[in-house]
Amino acid sequence: MKFGDEEHLLGIAQVNSLWGELRGLSALALAHGIDDIFQDNGAKVLQQLVIANLKLLPGREGNDAIDEDGQEWEMKSANVEKVSGYSTHHHLNKVILAKYRTVPWLFSVYRHIELQTIYAMKPEWLEPIFAVWQSHLEGTKVSRGKAVPAVLAINNPKIPLKFVAENGVCIFDREQGLGPFSPSAALRSSYR
Amino acid sequence: MKFGDEEHLLGIAQVNSLWGELRGLSALALAHGIDDIFQDNGAKVLQQLVIANLKLLPGREGNDAIDEDGQEWEMKSANVEKVSGYSTHHHLNKVILAKYRTVPWLFSVYRHIELQTIYAMKPEWLEPIFAVWQSHLEGTKVSRGKAVPAVLAINNPKIPLKFVAENGVCIFDREQGLGPFSPSAALRSSYR
Repeated sequence: MKFGDEEHLLGIAQVNSLWGELRGLSALALAHGIDDIFQDNGAKVLQQLVIANLKLLPGREGNDAIDEDGQEWEMKSANVEKVSGYSTHHHLNKVILAKYRTVPWLFSVYRHIELQTIYAMKPEWLEPIFAVWQSHLEGTKVSRGKAVPAVLAINNPKIPLKFVAENGVCIFDREQGLGPFSPSAALRSSYR
Repeated sequence: MKFGDEEHLLGIAQVNSLWGELRGLSALALAHGIDDIFQDNGAKVLQQLVIANLKLLPGREGNDAIDEDGQEWEMKSANVEKVSGYSTHHHLNKVILAKYRTVPWLFSVYRHIELQTIYAMKPEWLEPIFAVWQSHLEGTKVSRGKAVPAVLAINNPKIPLKFVAENGVCIFDREQGLGPFSPSAALRSSYR
């Protein structure tokens, strides 16, 4: 189409109209400490905070949040259409790993922009994953009979979606019409 | 507030309602080759494409787009509330710089999520900036009387917002109610 023709002008009007609808979301995000809904999954983080009744802890690395009892949480989300694991940290070292072992986790699964499920996990349930990372960091990992040299940090190791779905407690499932349930209550009442 | 209390449930309803409004924007973005409006400024890129009547070139590094005459453009945007310069490339080397010198540029200024102005620039107008980068890459830069060693790449050098506002042709100004004008026509008719 030509610049300024009817199709072009209609396209501009459509975007302007859709943009107007974003302002409410942007204002709500700002009130939750998220100043850009278009960067770093800002809008998705807002959605998870509201559903799980968590507050963002500002100025922290990652998506740390705190619940009504003062318990801190690690939050992760992933788009199942694009990845098979949750991103963690671009420079995962022993300090980060130690922190990861002290807090419960909230994992959200999206299909593009649609939230599908949320799982809560105790840190000890993630130990099979953490132990592998630790062996990397300590140089105790063995591959094909050979020791793998220790590294100071691992670049963004993933937590598989499948592992979380199999080992976490589901506190929200859109298709099944399940939840949301309180993540802390769900972990407290878990038998594992 | 307590998990599941009235305030919490109202918050969830509000987010659900706002989310419904995102679906139109997300669908439009997908039609323009942008598969996530919440990552890498996806929604803002969509807005610029529609306003400037450009098409995204898929699979390219950066935000390359093409206009109705087949001319390729480099697109950049920045939030004036957060930064004072446009990000360029995390690994800017001689190959990228050579490409930057061959295409016109479209620079968008946002105030948070609100588009304020768009400027078009010929690559030769950016030469004062490019020349500095080149001196870094070639090791011909001198600082305090000493030569600075050449580097293979520069990590994300910035193009100052101020430089663009002073040297570019404005094709859209929200406050002034100006435009949008065709960026290619604006460059063709520029006296500079």
